[in-house]
Amino acid sequence: MQSWVDGQPADSLPLKDRGLAYGDGLFETIAVKGGRPVLLERHLQRLAEGCRRLGLAANQPLIRSELLVYSAAMGEGVLKLILTRGDSLRGYAAAADAQPRRILQGSPLPSYPPALQNLGIRLFPCTTRLSEQPLLAGLKHLNRLEQVIARNEWHDGEHAEGLMLDAAGRVIEGVFSNLFLVSEGVLRTADLSRCGVAGVMRAELLDQARALGVPVDISDISLEQFQQADEVFLCNSVYGVWPVRAFADLSWSVGPLTRKLQGIARALLEV
Amino acid sequence: MQSWVDGQPADSLPLKDRGLAYGDGLFETIAVKGGRPVLLERHLQRLAEGCRRLGLAANQPLIRSELLVYSAAMGEGVLKLILTRGDSLRGYAAAADAQPRRILQGSPLPSYPPALQNLGIRLFPCTTRLSEQPLLAGLKHLNRLEQVIARNEWHDGEHAEGLMLDAAGRVIEGVFSNLFLVSEGVLRTADLSRCGVAGVMRAELLDQARALGVPVDISDISLEQFQQADEVFLCNSVYGVWPVRAFADLSWSVGPLTRKLQGIARALLEV
Repeated sequence: MQSWVDGQPADSLPLKDRGLAYGDGLFETIAVKGGRPVLLERHLQRLAEGCRRLGLAANQPLIRSELLVYSAAMGEGVLKLILTRGDSLRGYAAAADAQPRRILQGSPLPSYPPALQNLGIRLFPCTTRLSEQPLLAGLKHLNRLEQVIARNEWHDGEHAEGLMLDAAGRVIEGVFSNLFLVSEGVLRTADLSRCGVAGVMRAELLDQARALGVPVDISDISLEQFQQADEVFLCNSVYGVWPVRAFADLSWSVGPLTRKLQGIARALLEV
Repeated sequence: MQSWVDGQPADSLPLKDRGLAYGDGLFETIAVKGGRPVLLERHLQRLAEGCRRLGLAANQPLIRSELLVYSAAMGEGVLKLILTRGDSLRGYAAAADAQPRRILQGSPLPSYPPALQNLGIRLFPCTTRLSEQPLLAGLKHLNRLEQVIARNEWHDGEHAEGLMLDAAGRVIEGVFSNLFLVSEGVLRTADLSRCGVAGVMRAELLDQARALGVPVDISDISLEQFQQADEVFLCNSVYGVWPVRAFADLSWSVGPLTRKLQGIARALLEV
Protein backbone atom coordinates (compact mmCIF):
# COMPACT_ATOMS: atom_id res chain seq x y z
CA MET A 1 0.00 0.00 0.00
CA GLN A 2 1.12 3.54 -0.74
CA SER A 3 3.08 5.08 2.13
CA TRP A 4 2.11 8.28 3.88
CA VAL A 5 4.32 11.08 5.14
CA ASP A 6 2.55 13.44 7.52
CA GLY A 7 -0.79 12.17 6.33
CA GLN A 8 -0.08 12.56 2.61
CA PRO A 9 0.72 9.82 0.09
CA ALA A 10 4.48 9.84 -0.50
CA ASP A 11 7.36 7.57 -1.46
CA SER A 12 10.20 9.69 -0.22
CA LEU A 13 11.26 11.98 2.58
CA PRO A 14 13.39 15.12 2.72
CA LEU A 15 17.15 14.50 2.92
CA LYS A 16 17.31 16.83 5.94
CA ASP A 17 15.27 14.46 8.09
CA ARG A 18 16.98 13.65 11.39
CA GLY A 19 15.79 10.07 11.15
CA LEU A 20 18.27 9.62 8.32
CA ALA A 21 21.02 11.83 9.75
CA TYR A 22 21.13 10.40 13.28
CA GLY A 23 18.47 7.72 13.64
CA ASP A 24 16.72 10.39 15.70
CA GLY A 25 13.30 8.85 16.08
CA LEU A 26 11.15 5.88 17.00
CA PHE A 27 9.17 3.20 15.23
CA GLU A 28 6.35 0.76 15.79
CA THR A 29 5.62 -2.39 13.81
CA ILE A 30 1.92 -3.12 14.06
CA ALA A 31 -0.06 -6.11 12.84
CA VAL A 32 -3.25 -5.13 11.01
CA LYS A 33 -6.16 -7.56 10.92
CA GLY A 34 -9.68 -6.94 9.74
CA GLY A 35 -8.80 -3.33 9.10
CA ARG A 36 -7.75 -2.75 12.73
CA PRO A 37 -4.29 -2.22 14.25
CA VAL A 38 -3.72 -5.03 16.75
CA LEU A 39 -2.76 -3.94 20.28
CA LEU A 40 -3.03 -0.32 19.20
CA GLU A 41 -3.23 1.08 22.74
CA ARG A 42 -0.04 -0.68 23.76
CA HIS A 43 1.78 0.55 20.66
CA LEU A 44 0.65 4.12 21.33
CA GLN A 45 1.65 3.79 24.97
CA ARG A 46 5.18 2.66 24.08
CA LEU A 47 5.46 5.40 21.46
CA ALA A 48 4.37 8.00 24.01
CA GLU A 49 6.95 6.72 26.48
CA GLY A 50 9.62 6.94 23.77
CA CYS A 51 8.55 10.48 22.89
CA ARG A 52 8.72 11.46 26.54
CA ARG A 53 12.21 10.02 27.00
CA LEU A 54 13.59 11.43 23.73
CA GLY A 55 11.82 14.76 24.08
CA LEU A 56 9.77 14.34 20.90
CA ALA A 57 6.64 16.48 20.80
CA ALA A 58 4.35 14.15 18.89
CA ASN A 59 0.68 14.74 18.22
CA GLN A 60 -0.62 11.50 19.70
CA PRO A 61 -4.31 11.94 18.78
CA LEU A 62 -3.31 12.63 15.18
CA ILE A 63 -1.05 9.57 15.12
CA ARG A 64 -3.84 7.40 16.51
CA SER A 65 -6.24 8.71 13.94
CA GLU A 66 -3.84 8.13 11.05
CA LEU A 67 -3.07 4.59 12.21
CA LEU A 68 -6.79 3.81 12.30
CA VAL A 69 -7.52 5.28 8.88
CA TYR A 70 -4.47 3.65 7.27
CA SER A 71 -5.29 0.26 8.81
CA ALA A 72 -8.87 0.42 7.63
CA ALA A 73 -7.65 1.08 4.09
CA MET A 74 -4.99 -1.65 4.28
CA GLY A 75 -7.25 -4.33 5.75
CA GLU A 76 -4.52 -6.83 6.55
CA GLY A 77 -0.75 -6.66 6.75
CA VAL A 78 2.02 -5.01 8.71
CA LEU A 79 1.91 -1.29 9.38
CA LYS A 80 5.18 0.37 10.25
CA LEU A 81 5.10 3.79 11.83
CA ILE A 82 8.31 5.81 11.92
CA LEU A 83 8.30 9.02 13.93
CA THR A 84 11.36 11.22 13.46
CA ARG A 85 12.33 14.52 15.06
CA GLY A 86 11.78 16.18 11.70
CA ASP A 87 14.25 18.28 9.79
CA SER A 88 17.65 19.15 11.10
CA LEU A 89 19.62 22.26 11.55
CA ARG A 90 23.31 21.66 11.14
CA GLY A 91 24.61 19.42 13.89
CA TYR A 92 23.11 17.37 16.68
CA ALA A 93 21.14 20.19 18.29
CA ALA A 94 17.48 20.05 17.34
CA ALA A 95 15.55 23.19 16.56
CA ALA A 96 13.26 24.14 19.45
CA ASP A 97 10.34 24.24 17.03
CA ALA A 98 11.24 21.06 15.12
CA GLN A 99 8.11 19.32 13.89
CA PRO A 100 8.20 15.53 14.22
CA ARG A 101 7.53 13.70 10.96
CA ARG A 102 5.11 10.75 10.72
CA ILE A 103 5.82 8.02 8.19
CA LEU A 104 3.39 5.13 7.63
CA GLN A 105 4.41 2.16 5.52
CA GLY A 106 2.19 -0.83 4.82
CA SER A 107 3.38 -4.24 3.70
CA PRO A 108 1.89 -7.73 3.37
CA LEU A 109 2.01 -10.09 6.32
CA PRO A 110 5.28 -12.07 6.20
CA SER A 111 4.70 -15.66 5.12
CA TYR A 112 6.43 -17.62 7.85
CA PRO A 113 6.19 -21.43 7.52
CA PRO A 114 3.50 -22.81 9.89
CA ALA A 115 6.13 -25.13 11.38
CA LEU A 116 7.68 -22.17 13.19
CA GLN A 117 4.50 -21.83 15.25
CA ASN A 118 3.73 -25.51 15.51
CA LEU A 119 7.07 -27.24 15.99
CA GLY A 120 9.11 -24.29 17.16
CA ILE A 121 12.27 -22.71 15.92
CA ARG A 122 16.01 -23.16 16.16
CA LEU A 123 17.70 -20.15 17.74
CA PHE A 124 21.06 -18.96 16.44
CA PRO A 125 23.69 -18.06 19.06
CA CYS A 126 24.61 -14.50 18.02
CA THR A 127 28.04 -13.28 19.08
CA THR A 128 26.98 -9.64 18.68
CA ARG A 129 26.35 -8.30 22.16
CA LEU A 130 23.86 -5.60 23.10
CA SER A 131 25.54 -2.55 24.60
CA GLU A 132 24.20 -1.07 27.81
CA GLN A 133 22.56 2.33 27.50
CA PRO A 134 19.90 2.99 30.14
CA LEU A 135 18.83 6.20 28.36
CA LEU A 136 17.69 4.19 25.34
CA ALA A 137 16.90 0.80 26.86
CA GLY A 138 13.39 -0.48 26.21
CA LEU A 139 12.69 2.01 23.41
CA LYS A 140 12.02 1.00 19.83
CA HIS A 141 14.26 3.74 18.47
CA LEU A 142 15.88 4.02 15.05
CA ASN A 143 19.47 3.22 16.15
CA ARG A 144 19.43 -0.43 15.19
CA LEU A 145 22.91 -1.24 13.89
CA GLU A 146 23.41 -3.88 16.57
CA GLN A 147 20.38 -5.74 15.25
CA VAL A 148 21.55 -5.34 11.66
CA ILE A 149 24.96 -6.80 12.53
CA ALA A 150 23.45 -9.61 14.59
CA ARG A 151 20.94 -10.54 11.88
CA ASN A 152 23.81 -10.75 9.42
CA GLU A 153 25.50 -13.47 11.49
CA TRP A 154 23.46 -16.25 9.92
CA HIS A 155 22.14 -16.82 6.43
CA ASP A 156 20.91 -20.40 6.57
CA GLY A 157 17.25 -21.32 6.61
CA GLU A 158 17.70 -23.44 9.74
CA HIS A 159 17.57 -20.57 12.21
CA ALA A 160 14.47 -18.37 12.33
CA GLU A 161 15.86 -16.07 15.02
CA GLY A 162 19.03 -15.32 16.97
CA LEU A 163 19.67 -14.99 20.69
CA MET A 164 21.32 -11.81 21.89
CA LEU A 165 23.18 -11.40 25.17
CA ASP A 166 24.38 -8.16 26.67
CA ALA A 167 28.04 -7.32 27.17
CA ALA A 168 28.00 -8.97 30.59
CA GLY A 169 26.61 -12.20 29.13
CA ARG A 170 23.05 -11.84 30.36
CA VAL A 171 20.33 -13.31 28.14
CA ILE A 172 18.23 -10.42 26.78
CA GLU A 173 16.14 -11.08 23.68
CA GLY A 174 16.00 -12.17 20.07
CA VAL A 175 17.11 -9.93 17.21
CA PHE A 176 13.48 -9.00 16.43
CA SER A 177 11.65 -10.74 19.29
CA ASN A 178 11.43 -10.83 23.04
CA LEU A 179 12.33 -13.99 24.91
CA PHE A 180 10.44 -15.83 27.62
CA LEU A 181 11.37 -18.79 29.78
CA VAL A 182 9.27 -21.00 31.97
CA SER A 183 11.21 -22.31 34.96
CA GLU A 184 9.53 -24.25 37.76
CA GLY A 185 6.16 -22.77 36.84
CA VAL A 186 7.38 -19.15 36.73
CA LEU A 187 7.19 -17.14 33.52
CA ARG A 188 10.44 -15.23 33.17
CA THR A 189 11.65 -12.51 30.83
CA ALA A 190 14.68 -10.26 30.94
CA ASP A 191 14.84 -6.94 32.71
CA LEU A 192 15.23 -4.33 29.95
CA SER A 193 16.49 -1.36 31.92
CA ARG A 194 20.03 -1.54 30.43
CA CYS A 195 19.31 -2.65 26.85
CA GLY A 196 16.72 -4.38 24.72
CA VAL A 197 13.37 -3.44 23.24
CA ALA A 198 10.30 -3.66 25.47
CA GLY A 199 7.98 -5.35 23.00
CA VAL A 200 4.27 -4.77 22.86
CA MET A 201 3.49 -8.50 22.64
CA ARG A 202 5.82 -9.06 25.61
CA ALA A 203 3.78 -6.58 27.66
CA GLU A 204 0.52 -8.19 26.54
CA LEU A 205 1.66 -11.72 27.38
CA LEU A 206 2.93 -10.63 30.78
CA ASP A 207 -0.47 -9.18 31.59
CA GLN A 208 -2.28 -12.20 30.21
CA ALA A 209 -0.11 -14.53 32.28
CA ARG A 210 -0.77 -12.51 35.43
CA ALA A 211 -4.49 -12.68 34.69
CA LEU A 212 -4.18 -16.46 34.48
CA GLY A 213 -2.53 -16.52 37.90
CA VAL A 214 0.88 -17.49 36.48
CA PRO A 215 3.76 -16.15 38.59
CA VAL A 216 5.80 -13.70 36.55
CA ASP A 217 9.42 -12.65 37.08
CA ILE A 218 11.18 -9.82 35.23
CA SER A 219 14.85 -9.85 36.16
CA ASP A 220 18.33 -10.66 34.90
CA ILE A 221 18.63 -14.05 33.21
CA SER A 222 21.91 -15.90 33.04
CA LEU A 223 22.88 -18.22 30.21
CA GLU A 224 22.68 -21.12 32.67
CA GLN A 225 19.12 -20.20 33.65
CA PHE A 226 18.20 -20.00 29.99
CA GLN A 227 19.78 -23.36 29.26
CA GLN A 228 18.02 -25.03 32.18
CA ALA A 229 14.57 -23.58 31.45
CA ASP A 230 11.62 -25.95 31.12
CA GLU A 231 10.09 -23.98 28.24
CA VAL A 232 11.51 -21.29 25.98
CA PHE A 233 9.62 -19.12 23.53
CA LEU A 234 9.89 -15.90 21.56
CA CYS A 235 7.23 -13.35 20.74
CA ASN A 236 6.61 -10.24 18.71
CA SER A 237 3.71 -8.18 17.48
CA VAL A 238 3.58 -9.71 14.03
CA TYR A 239 4.02 -13.47 14.36
CA GLY A 240 2.77 -13.88 17.94
CA VAL A 241 4.59 -16.74 19.70
CA TRP A 242 7.29 -19.07 18.39
CA PRO A 243 8.32 -21.91 20.67
CA VAL A 244 12.09 -22.44 20.79
CA ARG A 245 12.89 -26.08 20.13
CA ALA A 246 16.65 -25.87 19.79
CA PHE A 247 19.66 -23.73 20.64
CA ALA A 248 23.16 -25.03 19.90
CA ASP A 249 23.11 -28.60 21.28
CA LEU A 250 20.11 -28.04 23.54
CA SER A 251 16.53 -28.92 22.69
CA TRP A 252 13.15 -28.35 24.22
CA SER A 253 9.68 -29.69 23.52
CA VAL A 254 6.85 -27.20 23.27
CA GLY A 255 5.51 -26.69 26.80
CA PRO A 256 1.97 -26.14 28.05
CA LEU A 257 2.34 -22.48 29.07
CA THR A 258 3.96 -21.73 25.72
CA ARG A 259 0.98 -23.29 23.94
CA LYS A 260 -1.49 -21.43 26.14
CA LEU A 261 0.10 -18.03 25.52
CA GLN A 262 0.55 -18.85 21.85
CA GLY A 263 -3.17 -19.43 21.61
CA ILE A 264 -3.85 -16.07 23.24
CA ALA A 265 -1.49 -14.31 20.82
CA ARG A 266 -3.03 -16.13 17.87
CA ALA A 267 -6.50 -15.05 18.91
CA LEU A 268 -5.32 -11.45 18.98
CA LEU A 269 -3.67 -11.71 15.57
CA GLU A 270 -6.45 -13.57 13.79
CA VAL A 271 -9.46 -11.78 12.45
CA MET B 1 23.94 23.85 -2.76
CA GLN B 2 21.58 21.28 -4.25
CA SER B 3 22.05 17.82 -2.76
CA TRP B 4 22.88 14.73 -4.77
CA VAL B 5 21.59 11.20 -4.37
CA ASP B 6 23.62 8.63 -6.28
CA GLY B 7 25.13 11.36 -8.38
CA GLN B 8 21.85 13.02 -9.35
CA PRO B 9 20.40 16.27 -7.97
CA ALA B 10 17.74 15.39 -5.39
CA ASP B 11 16.06 16.69 -2.25
CA SER B 12 14.59 13.47 -1.00
CA LEU B 13 15.30 9.79 -0.61
CA PRO B 14 13.13 6.68 -0.84
CA LEU B 15 11.26 5.79 2.35
CA LYS B 16 12.63 2.25 2.10
CA ASP B 17 16.19 3.40 2.70
CA ARG B 18 17.88 1.51 5.53
CA GLY B 19 19.57 4.68 6.69
CA LEU B 20 16.15 5.88 7.84
CA ALA B 21 14.87 2.52 9.04
CA TYR B 22 17.87 1.45 11.12
CA GLY B 23 20.58 4.11 10.87
CA ASP B 24 22.26 1.48 8.70
CA GLY B 25 25.08 3.50 7.20
CA LEU B 26 28.00 5.87 7.67
CA PHE B 27 28.72 9.54 7.19
CA GLU B 28 31.61 11.93 6.73
CA THR B 29 31.59 15.67 7.39
CA ILE B 30 34.20 17.28 5.17
CA ALA B 31 35.44 20.86 5.07
CA VAL B 32 35.67 22.23 1.53
CA LYS B 33 38.11 25.06 0.78
CA GLY B 34 39.12 26.41 -2.58
CA GLY B 35 36.96 23.83 -4.28
CA ARG B 36 38.82 20.93 -2.62
CA PRO B 37 37.72 18.52 0.11
CA VAL B 38 40.15 18.95 3.03
CA LEU B 39 41.83 15.75 4.27
CA LEU B 40 40.02 13.79 1.58
CA GLU B 41 42.28 10.73 1.79
CA ARG B 42 41.71 10.41 5.53
CA HIS B 43 37.96 10.73 5.10
CA LEU B 44 37.97 8.06 2.41
CA GLN B 45 40.16 5.84 4.55
CA ARG B 46 37.79 6.05 7.52
CA LEU B 47 34.81 5.47 5.23
CA ALA B 48 36.49 2.40 3.74
CA GLU B 49 37.19 1.06 7.23
CA GLY B 50 33.55 1.63 8.17
CA CYS B 51 32.39 -0.14 5.01
CA ARG B 52 34.67 -3.07 5.78
CA ARG B 53 33.40 -3.40 9.33
CA LEU B 54 29.71 -2.98 8.44
CA GLY B 55 29.93 -5.08 5.29
CA LEU B 56 28.92 -2.23 2.97
CA ALA B 57 30.02 -2.76 -0.63
CA ALA B 58 30.72 0.85 -1.58
CA ASN B 59 32.19 1.99 -4.85
CA GLN B 60 35.12 3.94 -3.43
CA PRO B 61 36.47 5.36 -6.71
CA LEU B 62 33.00 6.64 -7.58
CA ILE B 63 32.62 8.22 -4.13
CA ARG B 64 36.00 9.91 -4.46
CA SER B 65 35.10 11.24 -7.86
CA GLU B 66 31.73 12.58 -6.70
CA LEU B 67 33.29 14.27 -3.66
CA LEU B 68 35.81 16.01 -5.92
CA VAL B 69 33.23 17.17 -8.45
CA TYR B 70 30.78 18.32 -5.79
CA SER B 71 33.50 20.19 -3.88
CA ALA B 72 34.69 21.93 -7.02
CA ALA B 73 31.14 23.11 -7.67
CA MET B 74 30.60 24.18 -4.05
CA GLY B 75 33.88 26.04 -3.65
CA GLU B 76 33.67 26.53 0.09
CA GLY B 77 31.54 25.06 2.86
CA VAL B 78 30.81 21.79 4.57
CA LEU B 79 30.16 18.67 2.54
CA LYS B 80 28.32 15.87 4.25
CA LEU B 81 28.43 12.42 2.70
CA ILE B 82 25.95 9.83 3.91
CA LEU B 83 26.38 6.27 2.70
CA THR B 84 23.51 3.92 3.51
CA ARG B 85 23.05 0.23 2.81
CA GLY B 86 20.34 1.16 0.33
CA ASP B 87 16.78 -0.09 0.28
CA SER B 88 15.46 -2.62 2.70
CA LEU B 89 13.63 -5.83 2.50
CA ARG B 90 11.33 -6.34 5.44
CA GLY B 91 13.32 -6.72 8.63
CA TYR B 92 16.93 -6.37 9.66
CA ALA B 93 18.37 -8.75 7.06
CA ALA B 94 19.89 -6.89 4.13
CA ALA B 95 19.44 -8.13 0.60
CA ALA B 96 22.61 -9.78 -0.68
CA ASP B 97 22.51 -7.48 -3.70
CA ALA B 98 21.60 -4.29 -1.79
CA GLN B 99 23.12 -1.27 -3.51
CA PRO B 100 24.54 1.30 -1.10
CA ARG B 101 23.13 4.79 -1.60
CA ARG B 102 25.34 7.91 -1.72
CA ILE B 103 23.95 11.19 -0.45
CA LEU B 104 25.91 14.44 -0.73
CA GLN B 105 24.73 17.56 1.07
CA GLY B 106 26.49 20.92 0.95
CA SER B 107 26.06 23.72 3.45
CA PRO B 108 27.83 26.99 4.28
CA LEU B 109 30.70 26.96 6.76
CA PRO B 110 29.32 27.43 10.28
CA SER B 111 30.04 30.92 11.61
CA TYR B 112 31.66 30.21 14.95
CA PRO B 113 32.80 33.29 16.92
CA PRO B 114 36.58 33.81 16.53
CA ALA B 115 36.88 33.79 20.32
CA LEU B 116 36.34 30.04 20.33
CA GLN B 117 39.63 29.62 18.47
CA ASN B 118 41.49 32.45 20.17
CA LEU B 119 40.41 32.35 23.81
CA GLY B 120 39.13 28.80 23.95
CA ILE B 121 35.82 27.31 24.93
CA ARG B 122 33.94 26.31 28.04
CA LEU B 123 33.14 22.60 28.06
CA PHE B 124 29.80 21.39 29.38
CA PRO B 125 29.88 18.32 31.66
CA CYS B 126 27.42 15.98 29.92
CA THR B 127 25.77 13.36 32.07
CA THR B 128 24.92 11.23 29.03
CA ARG B 129 27.43 8.38 28.94
CA LEU B 130 28.71 6.65 25.82
CA SER B 131 27.84 2.96 25.77
CA GLU B 132 30.53 0.42 24.97
CA GLN B 133 30.15 -1.38 21.66
CA PRO B 134 33.46 -2.56 20.19
CA LEU B 135 31.73 -3.54 16.92
CA LEU B 136 30.83 0.10 16.25
CA ALA B 137 33.53 1.97 18.18
CA GLY B 138 35.51 4.45 16.13
CA LEU B 139 33.06 4.46 13.22
CA LYS B 140 31.14 7.54 12.12
CA HIS B 141 27.92 5.59 11.72
CA LEU B 142 24.34 6.85 11.60
CA ASN B 143 23.30 5.64 15.08
CA ARG B 144 23.81 8.92 16.89
CA LEU B 145 21.04 9.14 19.49
CA GLU B 146 23.60 9.36 22.31
CA GLN B 147 25.03 12.50 20.72
CA VAL B 148 21.55 13.94 20.16
CA ILE B 149 20.65 13.39 23.82
CA ALA B 150 23.98 14.76 25.05
CA ARG B 151 23.77 17.86 22.84
CA ASN B 152 20.33 18.52 24.27
CA GLU B 153 21.73 18.77 27.80
CA TRP B 154 22.68 22.42 27.42
CA HIS B 155 21.07 25.33 25.60
CA ASP B 156 23.07 28.29 26.86
CA GLY B 157 25.56 30.15 24.72
CA GLU B 158 28.30 29.72 27.31
CA HIS B 159 29.26 26.20 26.35
CA ALA B 160 30.47 25.51 22.82
CA GLU B 161 30.88 21.78 23.38
CA GLY B 162 30.21 19.05 25.94
CA LEU B 163 32.46 16.41 27.45
CA MET B 164 31.34 12.80 27.19
CA LEU B 165 32.52 9.96 29.41
CA ASP B 166 31.88 6.29 28.90
CA ALA B 167 29.80 4.17 31.26
CA ALA B 168 32.90 3.40 33.34
CA GLY B 169 33.68 7.10 33.74
CA ARG B 170 36.59 7.28 31.30
CA VAL B 171 37.03 10.56 29.41
CA ILE B 172 36.34 9.90 25.73
CA GLU B 173 35.49 12.90 23.52
CA GLY B 174 33.26 15.88 22.87
CA VAL B 175 29.76 15.53 21.43
CA PHE B 176 31.03 16.49 17.96
CA SER B 177 34.79 16.69 18.56
CA ASN B 178 37.73 14.62 19.70
CA LEU B 179 39.59 15.58 22.84
CA PHE B 180 43.33 15.97 23.43
CA LEU B 181 45.32 16.59 26.58
CA VAL B 182 48.91 17.62 27.06
CA SER B 183 50.39 16.21 30.25
CA GLU B 184 54.08 16.55 31.08
CA GLY B 185 54.90 17.09 27.44
CA VAL B 186 52.93 14.08 26.17
CA LEU B 187 50.02 14.54 23.76
CA ARG B 188 47.22 12.26 24.93
CA THR B 189 43.88 11.23 23.44
CA ALA B 190 41.45 8.50 24.39
CA ASP B 191 41.59 4.97 23.14
CA LEU B 192 38.47 4.51 20.99
CA SER B 193 38.21 0.73 20.83
CA ARG B 194 35.09 0.60 23.05
CA CYS B 195 33.22 3.74 21.99
CA GLY B 196 33.72 7.14 20.38
CA VAL B 197 34.32 8.39 16.86
CA ALA B 198 37.85 8.25 15.46
CA GLY B 199 37.94 11.71 13.92
CA VAL B 200 39.85 12.56 10.80
CA MET B 201 41.35 15.70 12.34
CA ARG B 202 42.36 13.63 15.37
CA ALA B 203 44.28 11.26 13.09
CA GLU B 204 45.89 14.17 11.26
CA LEU B 205 46.99 15.92 14.47
CA LEU B 206 48.39 12.70 15.89
CA ASP B 207 50.54 12.26 12.79
CA GLN B 208 51.57 15.91 12.78
CA ALA B 209 52.58 15.71 16.45
CA ARG B 210 54.63 12.58 15.81
CA ALA B 211 56.34 14.34 12.92
CA LEU B 212 57.22 17.17 15.31
CA GLY B 213 58.79 14.69 17.71
CA VAL B 214 56.05 15.10 20.31
CA PRO B 215 55.46 11.93 22.34
CA VAL B 216 51.94 10.64 21.75
CA ASP B 217 49.86 8.39 23.96
CA ILE B 218 46.53 6.81 22.98
CA SER B 219 45.06 5.08 26.00
CA ASP B 220 42.34 5.29 28.63
CA ILE B 221 42.02 8.70 30.28
CA SER B 222 40.55 9.09 33.75
CA LEU B 223 38.63 12.14 34.88
CA GLU B 224 41.52 12.93 37.25
CA GLN B 225 44.05 12.82 34.41
CA PHE B 226 41.83 15.14 32.39
CA GLN B 227 41.44 17.54 35.30
CA GLN B 228 45.18 17.63 35.94
CA ALA B 229 46.22 18.12 32.31
CA ASP B 230 48.50 21.03 31.42
CA GLU B 231 46.63 21.76 28.17
CA VAL B 232 43.25 20.62 26.89
CA PHE B 233 41.84 21.08 23.41
CA LEU B 234 39.19 19.76 21.04
CA CYS B 235 39.32 19.21 17.31
CA ASN B 236 37.18 18.29 14.37
CA SER B 237 37.32 18.44 10.59
CA VAL B 238 35.34 21.65 10.25
CA TYR B 239 36.55 24.10 12.91
CA GLY B 240 40.06 22.72 13.41
CA VAL B 241 41.22 23.19 17.02
CA TRP B 242 39.41 24.81 19.93
CA PRO B 243 41.41 25.24 23.14
CA VAL B 244 39.45 24.32 26.26
CA ARG B 245 39.66 27.16 28.77
CA ALA B 246 37.11 25.98 31.32
CA PHE B 247 35.27 22.91 32.56
CA ALA B 248 33.08 23.16 35.66
CA ASP B 249 35.28 25.01 38.20
CA LEU B 250 38.54 24.25 36.39
CA SER B 251 40.31 26.58 33.99
CA TRP B 252 43.28 26.36 31.66
CA SER B 253 45.23 28.89 29.67
CA VAL B 254 45.92 28.12 26.02
CA GLY B 255 49.13 26.10 25.92
CA PRO B 256 51.98 26.11 23.41
CA LEU B 257 51.33 22.69 21.85
CA THR B 258 47.66 23.56 21.50
CA ARG B 259 48.61 26.73 19.63
CA LYS B 260 51.08 24.88 17.44
CA LEU B 261 48.58 22.20 16.40
CA GLN B 262 45.87 24.81 16.00
CA GLY B 263 48.09 26.60 13.51
CA ILE B 264 48.61 23.37 11.57
CA ALA B 265 44.85 22.72 11.48
CA ARG B 266 44.17 26.29 10.44
CA ALA B 267 46.64 26.02 7.59
CA LEU B 268 44.82 22.92 6.36
CA LEU B 269 41.43 24.58 6.58
CA GLU B 270 42.37 27.90 5.03
CA VAL B 271 42.61 28.35 1.30
